[in-house]
Amino acid sequence: MTFETINRWRCFDGWQTVYAHPSEATGCRMEVAVYTPPQAETQACPVVYYLSGLTCTWENAVTKAGAQRYAADHGLILVFPDTSPRGDAVADAPDRYDLGKGAGFYLDATQDPWAEHYRMDDYVVRELPAVLEPVLPTADGRRSILGHSMGGHGALVLAMRNPDLYQAVSAFAPIVAPSQVDWGRKALTAYLGDDPTAWAAYDASALVRSRGWKADILVDQGEADAFLTSGLRPELFEAACAEAGVPLTLRRHVGYDHSYYFIASFMADHLRWHAERLRR
Amino acid sequence: MTFETINRWRCFDGWQTVYAHPSEATGCRMEVAVYTPPQAETQACPVVYYLSGLTCTWENAVTKAGAQRYAADHGLILVFPDTSPRGDAVADAPDRYDLGKGAGFYLDATQDPWAEHYRMDDYVVRELPAVLEPVLPTADGRRSILGHSMGGHGALVLAMRNPDLYQAVSAFAPIVAPSQVDWGRKALTAYLGDDPTAWAAYDASALVRSRGWKADILVDQGEADAFLTSGLRPELFEAACAEAGVPLTLRRHVGYDHSYYFIASFMADHLRWHAERLRR
Repeated sequence: MTFETINRWRCFDGWQTVYAHPSEATGCRMEVAVYTPPQAETQACPVVYYLSGLTCTWENAVTKAGAQRYAADHGLILVFPDTSPRGDAVADAPDRYDLGKGAGFYLDATQDPWAEHYRMDDYVVRELPAVLEPVLPTADGRRSILGHSMGGHGALVLAMRNPDLYQAVSAFAPIVAPSQVDWGRKALTAYLGDDPTAWAAYDASALVRSRGWKADILVDQGEADAFLTSGLRPELFEAACAEAGVPLTLRRHVGYDHSYYFIASFMADHLRWHAERLRR
Repeated sequence: MTFETINRWRCFDGWQTVYAHPSEATGCRMEVAVYTPPQAETQACPVVYYLSGLTCTWENAVTKAGAQRYAADHGLILVFPDTSPRGDAVADAPDRYDLGKGAGFYLDATQDPWAEHYRMDDYVVRELPAVLEPVLPTADGRRSILGHSMGGHGALVLAMRNPDLYQAVSAFAPIVAPSQVDWGRKALTAYLGDDPTAWAAYDASALVRSRGWKADILVDQGEADAFLTSGLRPELFEAACAEAGVPLTLRRHVGYDHSYYFIASFMADHLRWHAERLRR
């Protein structure tokens, strides 16, 4: 598997790199950004996957979240995958921001025309650890995952579906119950078909009830988030975690919205939280 | 003077605001971004001006420099002006990135067609402190300035031209000798005419020789900066400061380039440095 370095910047005494590589999972060329902290040159470091939200590429979080500083503080490698397959051959819904390119929802689609390339679950969970981590300096096999909005959904869902793979999970303003909100129902119907029983495999609130989670979960949510009551509804996940006996720290922040200003403000807490749990 | 709030985000327990206002100095509508730290709600805070480089608006530094966190740490108000006048009525050189809109060079132009609107010196030094600071919560009259590239040039030049106004100055990869480098000579010729004696008033290396500076200066420079030997030439400022007896801390960072990844990596040091000097 070939990783082509398409850009590379010195950053907080480590390196922010952007790779392009052919992906077997998605059947297209993918870009993925990686931050390697200064510690990675000499010692084993865990890998934290950050999944971005609707309309994003790796670039939003890499340029705006301020995560590199904290990764350098704690000796964490950060991996920023794209949010969907890309390229002219990939199906799209160009009039919609919440379906198609930029909106892969971190699942393996079963419905046409999406099933051919929209395999972001396979890509993030199986392909990237298998092919990317061996070429990173001193990735040590420990792994955790976090994300924002659709990426928060992805982080929660992929962690609960793969508890042996990830030691910790957290999220910013996640879509916690896609089966019960408008943009989730539309996406799940398109990608997985109109039988809601298929949706439960990619619904964090359903998954925590059916599978639980082996540790605690951190979620930050802005109270001024425009999607709070329509598309996010953290109270649904709070109730599901309580029912499942999974310890959830849900912090509601007055005045904060859905933007990267919100994410940047609390990134330090998240990466410290991951570092503590990855060291255990 | 009316400041219209065009956007506002909660950020590190303070507020990142973007204002639009009619400017008398530039004769057009200007946008300016302001970060007010949590301390500003209850106590007097100094104001740090950040001047951006070629092609930028307020947005580049506000979204990518990670400065808000350190401003919140130290209780600093940050002001991010635009890099030129804007609007359809404003002269431009659309085929050039280093002249016209996005390239005001923080001077008061004397040559047509630039003299009518290109008065960024007047705007940053006289207008903004006079009209913006009174509407900010508890700006306390202490003031310092920093910037990047063309904005580093602006910070050094405006500080040395106005030592009573600014208590401290620092720069990332500044254009320190515009009279001696290609993009500087082209801009100074266009804005100020072809007599090089007029350029000395906006050339940091000439100014530190003629006026000196009352305190120390911090400059960070990446060794992998593509503009290092063509457009920046920090050794010219180093020699001028040595000659003038002005203490310069010039840090050369191996592997760092001209990007915001470089700026973000050292922003903590700069704002700590400003906070220490503003408290004196």
